[in-house]
Amino acid sequence: MAQKPSIPKGTRDFNAEQVAKRSYIMETIKEQFKVFGFQPIETPSFENSDTLMGKYGDEGDRLIFKILNSGEFIESFNHIMIKLIKMAVFYHYEKMKIHIHDIDWNQNNYVDSFRDKFSKEINKKESEYFIQEKIPKKELLYDLGWFVFTNTTPNPEKSKEFVELNNSELEQLIITIFADWHSTLKSNYFSNYISEKALRYDLTVPFARYVVQHQNEIEFPFKRYQMQPVWRADRPQKGRFREFYQCDADVVGSKSLFQEVEFIQLYDTVFSALKLEGVTIKINNRKILSGIAEVIGAQDKLIDFTVALDKLDKIGEEKVKEEMRSKGISEDGITKLQPLFTLKGDFGNQVDSLKSILSTSEIGLKGIEELEFINTAISNLKLKTANLQLDVTLARGLNYYTGAIFEVSAPEGVNMGSIGGGGRYDDLTSVFGLPNMSGVGISFGLDRIYLVLEELGLFPDTIAVSTKVLFINFGDNEAMACLKAVTGLRQAGVKAELYPDSAISGKQKKKQMNYANRRDIPFVVLVGEEELKSGVFTLKNMSSGEQQKLPYTELLDALK
Amino acid sequence: MAQKPSIPKGTRDFNAEQVAKRSYIMETIKEQFKVFGFQPIETPSFENSDTLMGKYGDEGDRLIFKILNSGEFIESFNHIMIKLIKMAVFYHYEKMKIHIHDIDWNQNNYVDSFRDKFSKEINKKESEYFIQEKIPKKELLYDLGWFVFTNTTPNPEKSKEFVELNNSELEQLIITIFADWHSTLKSNYFSNYISEKALRYDLTVPFARYVVQHQNEIEFPFKRYQMQPVWRADRPQKGRFREFYQCDADVVGSKSLFQEVEFIQLYDTVFSALKLEGVTIKINNRKILSGIAEVIGAQDKLIDFTVALDKLDKIGEEKVKEEMRSKGISEDGITKLQPLFTLKGDFGNQVDSLKSILSTSEIGLKGIEELEFINTAISNLKLKTANLQLDVTLARGLNYYTGAIFEVSAPEGVNMGSIGGGGRYDDLTSVFGLPNMSGVGISFGLDRIYLVLEELGLFPDTIAVSTKVLFINFGDNEAMACLKAVTGLRQAGVKAELYPDSAISGKQKKKQMNYANRRDIPFVVLVGEEELKSGVFTLKNMSSGEQQKLPYTELLDALK
Repeated sequence: MAQKPSIPKGTRDFNAEQVAKRSYIMETIKEQFKVFGFQPIETPSFENSDTLMGKYGDEGDRLIFKILNSGEFIESFNHIMIKLIKMAVFYHYEKMKIHIHDIDWNQNNYVDSFRDKFSKEINKKESEYFIQEKIPKKELLYDLGWFVFTNTTPNPEKSKEFVELNNSELEQLIITIFADWHSTLKSNYFSNYISEKALRYDLTVPFARYVVQHQNEIEFPFKRYQMQPVWRADRPQKGRFREFYQCDADVVGSKSLFQEVEFIQLYDTVFSALKLEGVTIKINNRKILSGIAEVIGAQDKLIDFTVALDKLDKIGEEKVKEEMRSKGISEDGITKLQPLFTLKGDFGNQVDSLKSILSTSEIGLKGIEELEFINTAISNLKLKTANLQLDVTLARGLNYYTGAIFEVSAPEGVNMGSIGGGGRYDDLTSVFGLPNMSGVGISFGLDRIYLVLEELGLFPDTIAVSTKVLFINFGDNEAMACLKAVTGLRQAGVKAELYPDSAISGKQKKKQMNYANRRDIPFVVLVGEEELKSGVFTLKNMSSGEQQKLPYTELLDALK
Repeated sequence: MAQKPSIPKGTRDFNAEQVAKRSYIMETIKEQFKVFGFQPIETPSFENSDTLMGKYGDEGDRLIFKILNSGEFIESFNHIMIKLIKMAVFYHYEKMKIHIHDIDWNQNNYVDSFRDKFSKEINKKESEYFIQEKIPKKELLYDLGWFVFTNTTPNPEKSKEFVELNNSELEQLIITIFADWHSTLKSNYFSNYISEKALRYDLTVPFARYVVQHQNEIEFPFKRYQMQPVWRADRPQKGRFREFYQCDADVVGSKSLFQEVEFIQLYDTVFSALKLEGVTIKINNRKILSGIAEVIGAQDKLIDFTVALDKLDKIGEEKVKEEMRSKGISEDGITKLQPLFTLKGDFGNQVDSLKSILSTSEIGLKGIEELEFINTAISNLKLKTANLQLDVTLARGLNYYTGAIFEVSAPEGVNMGSIGGGGRYDDLTSVFGLPNMSGVGISFGLDRIYLVLEELGLFPDTIAVSTKVLFINFGDNEAMACLKAVTGLRQAGVKAELYPDSAISGKQKKKQMNYANRRDIPFVVLVGEEELKSGVFTLKNMSSGEQQKLPYTELLDALK
C-alpha cells in the first residue's frame, strides 16, 4: 500500500521560490561577513553528545535531538533486551536465593565475590543456551545484571533478612530492585550506549569546540562566520521550527570594544543591503545589570531581577515592581531603581541617569564606560539606516553574556520578535580546555528576516530563478534543431529549456504553452516544419503575445 | 574537567579554504543546473522513518541514522524495559503453564481469548504492584506481551505437547519464544516507538516524497536540483564519510530521451566549467542487460550475471566466466556472451556487436535503439571536453534504474572512483502513491571532484577568501581614524579589517604584522601619530615590502 507522504512536524520543504529568497538573504549576509573580514567554517551536523550536553541547561539538553547508535544498534539492543529477560527468567527468585546463600556477606569483598559468581553464571548459561548468538557489549550486560542484583546495597544484616523472605516478600523485593534499576537506565552509561551523537543545537558550542580543537591552526583574533542548520526538539509553532538556519559571526581572542562597534556596523550594513531600513539595534551590558543588582543589594537575585525588568514593556512599572517584591527584592532597592522605570531620551541622557543610579558600583560604572565607548564610536562613524538604542531591560542569554548584549528589532509597525541578537562572552571555550578566550558575536534570524522582507515586499523582483525561454517541441527533428539552439543559448548563460516530449496535436502544443505560462517563463520559441526548413526561430513574448521570426544569432541577441 | 574536543568519526570540520573550495565546486554546478532550467528545492534533514526505510534494501536500512524520539523518550523506554522484565518474572514458566491450561485451544478464537486473559492478567498485576508508575503506551506493552506468549503459533495439537513438557523442556521452549520475540523487536512497530525520524540517506527518495506530496503545486515535467548533505552510517574510510553533500539534478514526468541527451551535456558543461577536461561519461542501458540475460536464458539471474560482468575490468574474462558458471549460468549461455568480452571500437562498432548478440531479444533491441538515439544526438551536438563511452558492464543501482545508466570517471591518470552517476527510473514515486512517473537524473560526487581538482591543481587562485587589507592598531585614536577608513573601504566592497587590540610596544606591532602575514593578507595600512595628524595612510605591500603614503581617496583607489 502506498504511503501517504508527509514530513516530520516542525520541518519544512522549500520550493524554488523559497530557496531563492532564502539564498538571497543568506548571500547578502555572507557578502558582508566577508567584507568585514570574517572567514567561513563548517562543522558536522552531529557532534559527540558530550560536546553538546550540559551546555544549554536542562531544558536545552532535553531539546537536543539524539541520534541512535547506528548499524548494529537495534540488533545489539534486541540482544540486550533478550538477555535481560532471559536473566530475569533464569535468575528468578529461587535462583537468586541460591546466589544470596552463596555469598559470604561477612567478607569485605562480598560485592566482588557476588559479581564474580554472577558473571560466571551468566557465562555458563550463555555457553549452554545462547551459543549461537553474538554477545554484544558483554560488559554492559554484566554491569546491568550486577546492578540488578546488588544495587539494593546488600549488607550482612540485610542478607539474613533476604534468605528468610518468603516467595511473596521476595517478589516484592525484586520489584524494588527493578525500581532501582530504573535509575541505572537513566544514567549516562546507558544513554551513551544507545546514543553517542546528537544534532547541532546551535552554532556557538560547535564553534567553541572547533576553536579549541584547531587552536594550533588558527590565527587569533579569529573572525569566523558560519551559516548552517541547527535542530531543536521544541514544540513547533508559528515561526518556530525544529530545523532552521543560524547565521552567526563571531570573533574570539580579543577584548577590544572595537569589535562591538564593528558588529553594530555589520548589522547596519546587512540590513541596509537588504533594504530593511529603520531596524533598531538595542544594546545593553551585563555589567550594568550586575551593577544594578549590586546597588539594590540583590546580587544573588540577578536573574529574578532581570527577568522582572525585562517585562517592563509588556506589563508596566507597577506589575514589575510587584514581581520584584514577590522575589524578595527590598522596598528600598525598588526605590533606588525608580530612575530605571523612567529612563528617557537619547543615549546620553539615559547614560546620565544610569550613572547616578550606579555611582557606587564599580562594575556598573565599567559597564557604562563600555557603552559610552561604543556609542561614541558609532556616533562618529554614523549608521546608514539602523538606530542604536540603549535598552537597559535587555538581558537575553544572561548566563552566557558577560559584556555587551545586542538585539535587533524589525522596523516599527512590523509585528515580529527580534530578528538578530548576540553579545560578548568571556569564557566560551574553557569547558573544552582553553580558558580566557573572550569572544563576541552576533546572529541573524533568517526565518524572521524572511517574514519581514515578505511582509514589506522587499524581495527584489530579480530573485526569481525562472527559465528565460522554453523551446516548444514539435517532433524529434524539430527538437534536435532546437536543442542545438538551446545548447548555444546556455553557453551564453541564458536559462533555456526544450520541452522534452513532442507535441503532435494542437492540444499538446497548448499544454506546452501553458507549461511555460504557469512556470512564468517569459519567452517561448516555436520551431515547426517551416522554421526548420528556413533555419529561423519564432520567438514569442508570452506577456505581450508578440512574435518575431529570427535567425539564430538574432535570437541569441534577443535573449542574452 | 575540560573535555578533549573531538568530532564523531566519519565527519569533518571545514576551514575557510576548504569551505571556499567546496563552494566553488557547488556554485559552478549550481550555475549550470540553473542554465539548464533546473529549479532548486530543499527538503528537511530528517524524514519520517517510514519515508526512508525499505527504500534502500536491508543494507541501506542498516546504514540510515535514526533519531531518538525526543523529550520523554528515555523515560518511556525505561518503563518499557522494566515492564518487560517484570512480565518475564511474573509470567515465568509456571504461570505460563497455567495460562496454557486455561486456553480452550479448540475454540476458533483461542488467540483472542488468550489475548484477553493475558491482557487482564497484566492489568491486575499492574494495579497490584505498579500502581504508582505511569503506564507508557499500554498497547505496545500488551502487544509485545501477547507476542511473547503466542508467537509460537499455538494450535490444538501443540497445546497438548506444551502442558506435558517438563520444566527443562519448557525452559527450552521459552528460549525459542524469546528468539521469536527477537524478530518482533526488529519490527517497525517497535523501532517506531523509539525512533520515528531518520536522517536523509540520499536526495532521491526525499525528492520522490516531495514530488508526490506537492504534486498539485508542481508543473510536470519537473526539473529540480538539490544540493544538501546526506548521512550514512557506513564504516568511515579514506574518501568515505558519514556526512557528505549530494548534488543532484532530476527530471520527472517525461520519458523523452532528450533528457538523457541533456544530462550528458550537463555533465560535459559542468566539468568543462571546472576545467576538468577529459572525463569519460560511461553509458549503458538496463534494457540491454535484461536483453542479454534473456538471450542466455538467465532472466532470473540478472543480478548475478551483472555483478560478474561488472568485474571484467578487474578480474578478466576467464574469472568472470568462472563466476558465471558458479552462479549456474549455462555453458551455452556463456558461449553466446563471447562477443561481449571482446567488445571493441567506437560506439557504432560496439552497438553492431550488441545487435548481433541481442537479435532475438525485443527488450535488448529497444535498449540499443535508445542508446543509438542518445549517441546520435550527442554526436550531432558535440561535447566540449568529455568523452561519451558505451560500457555494457556498467550496472550501478541495477534494481533502481530501468533505462539509461550513467557513470562519470575522472580523466585518465587520476586514480579515483566514479565522480558522478545516474540513470533513468520508471517508478520512483509509486511507493508514495503516484505511479507511472518516469524520471531520470544525475548526481555529482562533490568530495571526489574536490580531490581530483586538488590533485590536478585546478582550483583557481582567486578562490581564497582572504581579507585584502589589515589596518594596524596603534591606539584608540588612531584606530578610530582607521575604522572610518575601513568603513569606507568596506562600503566599496573591499575586504578590510582593523586589528582590534592596540599595539603599544614594537613587539605588539610585529605581532599584528605577523598576523597579516600568516593570514595571507596582502596589504597592511599603518596609521601612527604622524599619519593621524597629516590625514594620510601608509599602505604597505606585504610581499614586496613597498610602502606608500596616501590620502584616503588614493588609498581607496589602490585597494579597490
